[in-house]
Amino acid sequence: MTVTLLPTDDTTTRTMQELYRHLHAHPELSMQETETCAFLTRRLEDLGLETFRCGGTGVVGILRNGAGPTVAYRADTDGLPIQEETGLDYASTARGTLADGTDVPMMHGCGHDTHMTVALTLAEHLVTHPTAWAGTVVFIFQPGEETGAGAVAMLADGLWDRAPRPQIVYGQHVWPGLAGTVDISSGVAMAMADSWKVTVHGRQAHGSQPDQSIDPIVLGAHMVVRLQTVVSREVHPMKAAVVTVGTFHGGLKENIIPATAEFTVNVRTFDVEVRTRVLDSLRRIIAAEAQASGAPDPMIEVLSTFPRCYNDPAATQQLIDELGGALGTNCVIEVPPVMGSEDFGLLAEAIGVPSVYWMFGGYSQQTIDATKSVAGNHSPHFAPDSEPALAAGLTAALTAILSRVGTPGGAA
Amino acid sequence: MTVTLLPTDDTTTRTMQELYRHLHAHPELSMQETETCAFLTRRLEDLGLETFRCGGTGVVGILRNGAGPTVAYRADTDGLPIQEETGLDYASTARGTLADGTDVPMMHGCGHDTHMTVALTLAEHLVTHPTAWAGTVVFIFQPGEETGAGAVAMLADGLWDRAPRPQIVYGQHVWPGLAGTVDISSGVAMAMADSWKVTVHGRQAHGSQPDQSIDPIVLGAHMVVRLQTVVSREVHPMKAAVVTVGTFHGGLKENIIPATAEFTVNVRTFDVEVRTRVLDSLRRIIAAEAQASGAPDPMIEVLSTFPRCYNDPAATQQLIDELGGALGTNCVIEVPPVMGSEDFGLLAEAIGVPSVYWMFGGYSQQTIDATKSVAGNHSPHFAPDSEPALAAGLTAALTAILSRVGTPGGAA
Amino acid sequence: MTVTLLPTDDTTTRTMQELYRHLHAHPELSMQETETCAFLTRRLEDLGLETFRCGGTGVVGILRNGAGPTVAYRADTDGLPIQEETGLDYASTARGTLADGTDVPMMHGCGHDTHMTVALTLAEHLVTHPTAWAGTVVFIFQPGEETGAGAVAMLADGLWDRAPRPQIVYGQHVWPGLAGTVDISSGVAMAMADSWKVTVHGRQAHGSQPDQSIDPIVLGAHMVVRLQTVVSREVHPMKAAVVTVGTFHGGLKENIIPATAEFTVNVRTFDVEVRTRVLDSLRRIIAAEAQASGAPDPMIEVLSTFPRCYNDPAATQQLIDELGGALGTNCVIEVPPVMGSEDFGLLAEAIGVPSVYWMFGGYSQQTIDATKSVAGNHSPHFAPDSEPALAAGLTAALTAILSRVGTPGGAA
Amino acid sequence: MTVTLLPTDDTTTRTMQELYRHLHAHPELSMQETETCAFLTRRLEDLGLETFRCGGTGVVGILRNGAGPTVAYRADTDGLPIQEETGLDYASTARGTLADGTDVPMMHGCGHDTHMTVALTLAEHLVTHPTAWAGTVVFIFQPGEETGAGAVAMLADGLWDRAPRPQIVYGQHVWPGLAGTVDISSGVAMAMADSWKVTVHGRQAHGSQPDQSIDPIVLGAHMVVRLQTVVSREVHPMKAAVVTVGTFHGGLKENIIPATAEFTVNVRTFDVEVRTRVLDSLRRIIAAEAQASGAPDPMIEVLSTFPRCYNDPAATQQLIDELGGALGTNCVIEVPPVMGSEDFGLLAEAIGVPSVYWMFGGYSQQTIDATKSVAGNHSPHFAPDSEPALAAGLTAALTAILSRVGTPGGAA
Repeated sequence: MTVTLLPTDDTTTRTMQELYRHLHAHPELSMQETETCAFLTRRLEDLGLETFRCGGTGVVGILRNGAGPTVAYRADTDGLPIQEETGLDYASTARGTLADGTDVPMMHGCGHDTHMTVALTLAEHLVTHPTAWAGTVVFIFQPGEETGAGAVAMLADGLWDRAPRPQIVYGQHVWPGLAGTVDISSGVAMAMADSWKVTVHGRQAHGSQPDQSIDPIVLGAHMVVRLQTVVSREVHPMKAAVVTVGTFHGGLKENIIPATAEFTVNVRTFDVEVRTRVLDSLRRIIAAEAQASGAPDPMIEVLSTFPRCYNDPAATQQLIDELGGALGTNCVIEVPPVMGSEDFGLLAEAIGVPSVYWMFGGYSQQTIDATKSVAGNHSPHFAPDSEPALAAGLTAALTAILSRVGTPGGAA
Repeated sequence: MTVTLLPTDDTTTRTMQELYRHLHAHPELSMQETETCAFLTRRLEDLGLETFRCGGTGVVGILRNGAGPTVAYRADTDGLPIQEETGLDYASTARGTLADGTDVPMMHGCGHDTHMTVALTLAEHLVTHPTAWAGTVVFIFQPGEETGAGAVAMLADGLWDRAPRPQIVYGQHVWPGLAGTVDISSGVAMAMADSWKVTVHGRQAHGSQPDQSIDPIVLGAHMVVRLQTVVSREVHPMKAAVVTVGTFHGGLKENIIPATAEFTVNVRTFDVEVRTRVLDSLRRIIAAEAQASGAPDPMIEVLSTFPRCYNDPAATQQLIDELGGALGTNCVIEVPPVMGSEDFGLLAEAIGVPSVYWMFGGYSQQTIDATKSVAGNHSPHFAPDSEPALAAGLTAALTAILSRVGTPGGAA
Repeated sequence: MTVTLLPTDDTTTRTMQELYRHLHAHPELSMQETETCAFLTRRLEDLGLETFRCGGTGVVGILRNGAGPTVAYRADTDGLPIQEETGLDYASTARGTLADGTDVPMMHGCGHDTHMTVALTLAEHLVTHPTAWAGTVVFIFQPGEETGAGAVAMLADGLWDRAPRPQIVYGQHVWPGLAGTVDISSGVAMAMADSWKVTVHGRQAHGSQPDQSIDPIVLGAHMVVRLQTVVSREVHPMKAAVVTVGTFHGGLKENIIPATAEFTVNVRTFDVEVRTRVLDSLRRIIAAEAQASGAPDPMIEVLSTFPRCYNDPAATQQLIDELGGALGTNCVIEVPPVMGSEDFGLLAEAIGVPSVYWMFGGYSQQTIDATKSVAGNHSPHFAPDSEPALAAGLTAALTAILSRVGTPGGAA
Repeated sequence: MTVTLLPTDDTTTRTMQELYRHLHAHPELSMQETETCAFLTRRLEDLGLETFRCGGTGVVGILRNGAGPTVAYRADTDGLPIQEETGLDYASTARGTLADGTDVPMMHGCGHDTHMTVALTLAEHLVTHPTAWAGTVVFIFQPGEETGAGAVAMLADGLWDRAPRPQIVYGQHVWPGLAGTVDISSGVAMAMADSWKVTVHGRQAHGSQPDQSIDPIVLGAHMVVRLQTVVSREVHPMKAAVVTVGTFHGGLKENIIPATAEFTVNVRTFDVEVRTRVLDSLRRIIAAEAQASGAPDPMIEVLSTFPRCYNDPAATQQLIDELGGALGTNCVIEVPPVMGSEDFGLLAEAIGVPSVYWMFGGYSQQTIDATKSVAGNHSPHFAPDSEPALAAGLTAALTAILSRVGTPGGAA
């Protein structure tokens, strides 16, 4: 099937930009995407899709267009607690509240605004070109990707009992590559990720009486330092693993040694054995360092567990061929897996169908040339060049969908 | 002069308990003691004292009783950002807001409620016994002792231009000793204290891309660890020094390596040379550890500097004798200086008059026997036995004042 | 060419075993292989080869057999300062003296004894089968592989001015795999390795006077700890790097804080950019940690630099095919590069000819089954099953040589 | 008694200098003082004293001079494994062998050469002035002071069964003060000292295979770092404690992760409770850090335990008065206890008699003025100005002895 439908006209571009700017300016935190969910639902219903809310702040849109295969496309919807520093005139000034009550700035710092924009435009395009395809497309607007809570929540809320089951699930992510290019891995595509919250218990005392205390900040600092040895000494040098302590919080006043400190740790691995060893070593080190301080056993809470994101090799090869036709073969690059994590893979795995996930570039050549190093995802400066990025993202998504649905009155 | 005036009657006890419970239940944070200030002012004015507000939330009450010496008595008024866990039925449930906007619980965790109660009761007693003494007593209700901001603020606000200058300044502090006993040092009584806020600058990146980051949490942890060597290796083993990192905060999300982390450090020393070496070493270590990470120079802000609290030896000896008469000689214990710090000393030093500061016990023998180790100041469990503690505190304060004011119609 | 010459007869086996046991029992330290060199020279001359001593304790044997290609085969000759704990009846009890005068035990803990045994047997076999091949084989018995000093020394001593230049250089290494199998990489085969000696300068003082000292042991310990962050935080998680502190020595007496401490660090990388970053970070951390202690700049001496070991892809493919024929195709395994390092690559690189290097298994299936985890190279328990290991090593070496020399009276 | 006997004549000075230079040039290691013991024995016997060898390399000389009290005087005899860097023409070039076989330089780096010189000269003086005193003086030349092994060894070898029991035991030590001055403490005079050797067990592997190892150097470094928190966080800021890791040794080769590392730790405390807490914390940290590495329990061996050195207050006061008469009252300074340790105290404690120990200055005013900071004990530059130092040391020792022996034909 030739992709003759590419939506490069001015109207589509204008609409996409408006959508994008609106979504960019209104980020919401993971599993709190209430306004976003309402906005998406309204849009989908305006286009005539069936919708249902699923997994709290998720929404599913179903587009039926006669007999034919069913294909699912997933876009994630949550923003991040980052203070935007892009200087864009539609930059976010929104603030939200973390689960622990902390007031934080919010930003679409991981590009989920582009994902939603592409998905809505894709829906509109398929609605307005009913003769170009046949079958059913399920649009999954998933909340809580950043926390790994969203896919699980949608599945638990009966996603596949309420939506038609697809033959394949597609998804994509913007990243700081050249707009117009796609990076794709066959097999394991993204890392497993495990996040824990560790609460270190010490004994509070006045700052001048360390001998009366068990200092949880000194203890926590030794844990952070000691955790570095897991990657440096315990993981095979040719195996990938990351152990990041993303937060560390303890104490309210400089002259009080607090009773507790807490930190979060985020682990990335590709290999189940490596993951097991790393997590075991974390537990061992955390427990032993507490003992070294004469402190009680720290409390470890699992915050999230991201599964591996696995691209079905056959479906991936087929998509590479299709995307090569649409974008140019030298714009579709097969890459090794990346350290990032995703809960996308769960959606297909839950019903035993293949899925494919890829990265699409977000920056123009001009921006790349002008900047020594463009801002990456989760940076306060992350600002894709939305025109070329969205156009290419839409092309890729449309290509993927059309490669699997049927032709009207004919075979797929 | 014999202390025949000791207010041991039931009314005084009842009044003191009511005052104490009210004040205990309503702590406020340093330099935010607005309600406390209003309450104290009302009470002082009800007693007929002249008052003026000074240093923001401080208040001064002047009690004139004919010709005679002027004596100043200082009580501090601020609470702490601690979640009270005493289980008392008048425990604080109040919450306040730190300068950085953090919402925190509040507690009179350092006994300043007892100090205010004693001072108000002392004022009432002197007012109701005008024939027992002559002269002027200046009651200084100082805010912001915990942050070292209050004495400086009152002096800057013209304390001694607006109040009569005293021949001596007295002050006392409750601590977890036996109620009825007083601990007092001659000469240096309390440590110098220096508090800094250190902001560590790294480079933000996604948690899966440590090589793109300069990790400020790992850097900060190494600083905390390395700072331990200042006391362990750089200070003469027989000289006292404390380096406490009371707070450490960095990061908002487990999968983002943040751009910065910040910690506060509190240093206690008795000796000017030791102080200089410790502070120099802190600066050296903080700068070098940042270099070890390839990070920019951290920012160091001085939060507070507490001077030495110096008890005039002659005045101290005189007071020891007087207190021995009032409390029993074996209840007045001369002790070496303590590691705690105070800005009390500044009040007298600013006008070149002597001052004396002492500790009074807060726990009954019964409590001490029943508890393996009674809760100390700044503990969430700090709960003096208010009846004996307040009675003894009042006795000590009254004894001190009466030892220096005059007798009606006679010499001091 | 079919390998019909495989030396599986009893005499060869017996001779190899005798050779092996003798060499195993007489290890010598790197660049001190005097007795080994004399032994090898005698053996080579007994076989009628021309020999010359080269690079101190290296020896070259030249076997000419008519017109034809020239092929070089290299075996390394040095032992290690390890106390052998194999319990073998021919275990080494030898002791040697390190450059700094330390008396140490010695052991062929890396299997160079098997390499020499194979090479000598190979020479004997070629000598005794002159009609089976034509051309010249250069046997390079290289000293000092463990320290990276030997290949450089032989080249500097005119190796290729004194020996015929080959069309290719082969070499192999025993490792704890199954005897009869060969592991081989195409392209980069082994890591670059850089070793440094770091001398940390402090200030000596009595153990009771830390404040008079700059403690080089505490400083060195902080360096070791801080160096862990290079791999854990600075290297891309999917790039390989190892930073090992192999030795740390400081102090003579428990109650003297010494003036200096010294440690050695060994770095492994595959990628030139990674190597540069790691070495830069090491220098940065070592310098900054000294500053954190107020210590003088440490002294860094480069002990050795191992280049990459690069297997020519075409020559490797050809050898894989030949070895598959000789050992069975499922016994020749193409593997990713290993973290070990070698100076073998220099020998060919110096004259711009290809080289190929592979690993041959050292343990029988029986041993592998009986042992939970067989002892690896550099372990005090390293003890290959010499019969199958030597037979397979000889087969592999002979196959390689014969694949490149000529046939008598014919083309290669 | 007036000290009219002060040996200031030229002959004494010359003899003392010769003795001193000989002893300085011939240091021996602790408990290996064979030559020193022989030299001392010969000298004592030349003077006509009874002698017996005691505690291995110790020697006792008994000088009887009629009826009267018995007084003991102790001098220690061992040198240190330090490379002398004084540049003196009689500097030591001797080398010795530690218990573990290490060849080391040797130096009288703690001034025990001055102690022996003073004691021998004192003996000669008393021998040559028999009419000036009456009674018995026991000269104890004790080996192994540096290791804490000597006093115990002499006692175990029957010191007080073989020598007359004294009424008091005296001893003194040179230190970097002004020659002619004496520093003396009443009560606790020197710290308790505990030395341990800690052997850390890891798992050996090739330097490129950290994941196969348990790295004992990284583990040991974390222990050294973590031990800093004992003094910085666990000891009351006004109590003295020192935890020094004086040696750390692990590894033979930069590319082998060794199986073990070992370090020694030396602890100084004055207070039994502090000692208990520090030693408990050391054990706790060492065990827990091994667990953090997944390593076996380290082995802890006690190397030495120095008791407190306690100066009998009454005897000290009497000596202060006598020394004030001999040296000038402003040259006898009562000081707080020092962090150094001694096994001297055991000698008197074993038989329940009082003892007094003091420090005598070793440097002239000229040297002190010329040097920014004179070299202290255990420094490779330690070089007392022997003329004034020995004269003053002799005066002090003679004064002490004469204050307690009797007068001929009269009462003590």
